[in-house]
Formats: sequence, C-alpha cells, structure tokens
Amino acid sequence: MSGGNRLGRVAIVGAGQVGTMLGLALRSRASDARPDAVREVDRVVLADSSAEALEASLARGAGDVALPAEELPGLLPELDTVVLALPVPAIQAWLSELGPRLSPGTFVLDTGSAKAAVVATMRERLPERVHALGGHPMAGSERPGPGGADPARLRDAPFVLVPVRNDPTALARGRLLATAVDARPVEMDAATHDRLVATASHLPHVMAFALAMVAAGTNGDGELHRVAGTGFAGAVRLARSDPAMVAGFMAANATEVQAAVSELCTALARVSAAIRGGPAELTALLAGARADLEGLT
Amino acid sequence: MSGGNRLGRVAIVGAGQVGTMLGLALRSRASDARPDAVREVDRVVLADSSAEALEASLARGAGDVALPAEELPGLLPELDTVVLALPVPAIQAWLSELGPRLSPGTFVLDTGSAKAAVVATMRERLPERVHALGGHPMAGSERPGPGGADPARLRDAPFVLVPVRNDPTALARGRLLATAVDARPVEMDAATHDRLVATASHLPHVMAFALAMVAAGTNGDGELHRVAGTGFAGAVRLARSDPAMVAGFMAANATEVQAAVSELCTALARVSAAIRGGPAELTALLAGARADLEGLT
Repeated sequence: MSGGNRLGRVAIVGAGQVGTMLGLALRSRASDARPDAVREVDRVVLADSSAEALEASLARGAGDVALPAEELPGLLPELDTVVLALPVPAIQAWLSELGPRLSPGTFVLDTGSAKAAVVATMRERLPERVHALGGHPMAGSERPGPGGADPARLRDAPFVLVPVRNDPTALARGRLLATAVDARPVEMDAATHDRLVATASHLPHVMAFALAMVAAGTNGDGELHRVAGTGFAGAVRLARSDPAMVAGFMAANATEVQAAVSELCTALARVSAAIRGGPAELTALLAGARADLEGLT
Repeated sequence: MSGGNRLGRVAIVGAGQVGTMLGLALRSRASDARPDAVREVDRVVLADSSAEALEASLARGAGDVALPAEELPGLLPELDTVVLALPVPAIQAWLSELGPRLSPGTFVLDTGSAKAAVVATMRERLPERVHALGGHPMAGSERPGPGGADPARLRDAPFVLVPVRNDPTALARGRLLATAVDARPVEMDAATHDRLVATASHLPHVMAFALAMVAAGTNGDGELHRVAGTGFAGAVRLARSDPAMVAGFMAANATEVQAAVSELCTALARVSAAIRGGPAELTALLAGARADLEGLT
C-alpha cells in the first residue's frame, strides 16, 4: 500500500469514455521521468465487463493492463486507488457489492454526474478507514466509448470533489487526482452539486433529447436535413450521448432535474408570451436573458 | 445594368454579421483573375445606417465602398443586385419604403430567417419586372456585428431560396449568388421553410435563451460557473445572438415557433415522466430519440 499523498496503484473500473480519458491522463503521469517518490501514479489497471471496451481502451493507452471486471475483486487488496467510471446505477451496484471488501487506506472516487445518491451509498457501504470521495470531472463528450475519450478536455475543466465523511486524506487524494489529470478541483457538497449540475448539465441533456424528439416529428417528409445547419447540430449534440449513462444520472438526480425542467417550461412560456407581444417586448426579454448570461460565465 | 446571369453591381444593405459575411465571400469573386464576362460580381457597395458598422465591415474587406443607408436610394438605378441583410422587420420596412423604386431587371434577395412574411411583402411592394427571391443562408453565428462574420461558415451550408413569383431569372440569380459564396442552394416554398426552420433554428434559439433564464435563477448564490463546462456553454451559445435579430425572426414566424415550443414542452414532459419511471424506461425513451436523430442528419 502506498503511504502518504500518492495515488499509487490505480484501478479504473469502467473502460468507457470517462475511464479511458482518466486512464490516458493518469498514465502520462505514471510514465514520465520524475523520481518514484514524487510520481503520483505507479500503474493503471483497467477493469470492465466488456472485453471489447477493454481492448479498445488498452489500445489507446489508457492502462498498463486490462482485467475482466469479475477478476477485479482478487486484486482489491493490492490497490491504492479505485476510480469508478461507470453509469450512476452501476457505481451504486459496485459499491453495494464490493465496497465492504475494500482495504483500509484505499482511496475510492467515482465519476458519476449525480452525487447525493452515490455519496449516500459510499457512506453506507464503505468501511470507515476507506478514504472515499464523490467525484465529477466535467469534461465528458457526447461520443460514447473509449474512442470518444479526449484527455485534452480535462485541461482546466472543473473536477468536482464531494466529501463523504470528514476525511482530509480523501480530500487531499482527490485534489491530487484532479490536478494530476490537469483539471481544476472544485469542492462542494452533494446537494449543491446536484442542484447546480441539474441546470448546467442535466437540463442541457434533457433539452437536446427533447429537441431530437421534436425534430423527428417535424421531419415527417424527410426534409429537415435540408435546413439543418450548425445551430441545430449544436443544439442536439448532447443527444448523441450514451442513453444508459444519461438515464443513470438523470434518474439519480430526478428531483433536481424535474425542478429544472419545470423552470425551463416556465421560461419557454415567457418567451412564447413575448412572441405574441411582438418584436419590441421579445427583444427586451431576450436582451435581459443575454445580459444575465454575461454575468454567469 | 448587367445582362444575363450575373450579379454585377451589388449593394448589401446591412453591414452586420450576415452582410459582412456575404460581402467578404462576394468580393473574393469580384477580385479574382477570371475574365469580366464570367466573373459574377463587379463590385460590392455596403449600406448601413450605422457609421460604426460600415467602417468595421469595410475594414474587414466586405465592400468596395460604404454608403450611409439614407444615400442608397440615389444609387438604386445603378444596381444589378440588392441583398437585404437586416433583421426581418427592417427588411419588411425597407421593401415597403424603397421596393417600389427598384428598377426593372434588378435582382433583390433578403437573408431573413423567416420567409413567408418577407415574401408576402416582396409580392406586395416590388414592381413585376424586379426579380425577387427570398433567401436564407444558414451560416450565421451567435457573434453579432461585422466582427462575427466568418465566410468559411458558408462553405456547403444550406442557402435556402424561396420563390416570390414564377420568375426563372430570379431563381437563376439566387442559385448563382448561393454558389458564388460557396453555399449549397436549397429551393423550397416559404411555408415549408418556416415550418422546418422553426424546429431546426428558431426553437434552438428559444431553448438557449430559456436556459439562460433558468441559469440566472439557479445562480442565486453565484456558484453556477463552478460547474459550467462545455455542455452548458454549447447549450447557451445561441443566447449570445443579437436579441433584436432573434426577436425579429421569431415574431415574423410566430405561429410556427409557438407550435414548436409547444411540441418541445410535450417532449420535455415525456422525459420528465420517464425520469419518474426509472433508468430502464428513461433509457428506452432516450435511445429512441437518439436513433431518430441518426436518421435525420
């Protein structure tokens, strides 16, 4: 077991887009020329139930070795760090089944996009001396699988870290992991994360899928592609995401997402009413929204 | 007056993003080394009521000469082509005031994002021997003004051409203009354009502004930027557009836009219901929407 503030021997569970992205970023840390003592990562093990995903992720260089998911339990005592890069329901299932078997001192972090549900499962299933942290690297793309992984997206991206217990070691290792992959550690509690991400990420996903549904209806005569430009492509981009992953985080953050959807419908109704009011009233409403946006980002 | 199928002496009315983009693309045609007889464009005059916009557009190279909008009427008899690159209400006001003064043989095309309203005004206000066509180059960006113009966006972009009367000359010149700027001419009637564009462009604009409104509400404590990544940035991108331009085309296409907003709310309600149903039901709904999208584009 690695002592001190190192990630040591890392297993990434889930060799999809996020796991592959993190594996690529972490392995560049394991293979550089610095002395062992300051190198954050010793080696990266990839685990997945899909042989195809493992092979593709390994071929991209995301791990030193690949392991079928069912063989991972045997390796757990040897690991310093376990990163759960799975859809939220699968993260919870993994924690429920294998969490109690993690060794004292192991650092475990997930990458799911909904944190309250995951953190609650961590509290319930992980032994006290396991260092646990909820994590959410906000650097995914809509391209599923190892082929969609792009570690460049991690650069300066927010990597949210959510405390599970009062555990400074867990937080220190989370910061180390986030900075080791070139992201920006952002600490907040699970409820704040879930509320903010419902608007900043989950709602944009809902919108993209809803637009795809509307477009399918409009396209009765197969003509929509004739006028679909970059605006449409941008607005539906997130609807190319893996449906199971998106469904996982939306269902795990159901209350906040439904509240955000409801607020969106209110905003849409305001725009619709202003359209009836004519260009001047509509311009004023849109100009206000645009000004608010400038203040946000 | 230029005979045959040429654009000749062109005036672009409106030196904003779209006018500047088209001016840049057309001037590269006027200045190349081909013989006069096959060169589509002789020169480009920019007209705008804003001296600032004129100066910026001219500085970018979008015109050979700039003219205050109020001086343009004196030049009308000398022009072969007039391109109205203004917000939709301003296009209609221009046609109402100056349309009757256009000379026989002149080709006039607008670039507004709503076509039924513009084409109706063209029919009403333009003399029979003026060759008129509704136009919509689907290559704008959210960056307003001459600085936002990017002629590279025209490459292979749909350039919708909408007949005003049975006028093969107008259609031929519209195709010439669209291909001269490297875009792809797409012919359809005004009603089809407005219905398709309501979904493919106007609704994405409504969604982006509505998301900006929701985000402003969520951001009560100023924390949203901590988790706002590329997903959020992409989803609100169109809300950085010029509010007057967006309000102009939405109000001119009010019925279709409101129908699209209503369909979006129905789709949002379906997603919300499926969230309540849990990950499996939600995955099925999202996977269906994603598959529909593959079929569209």
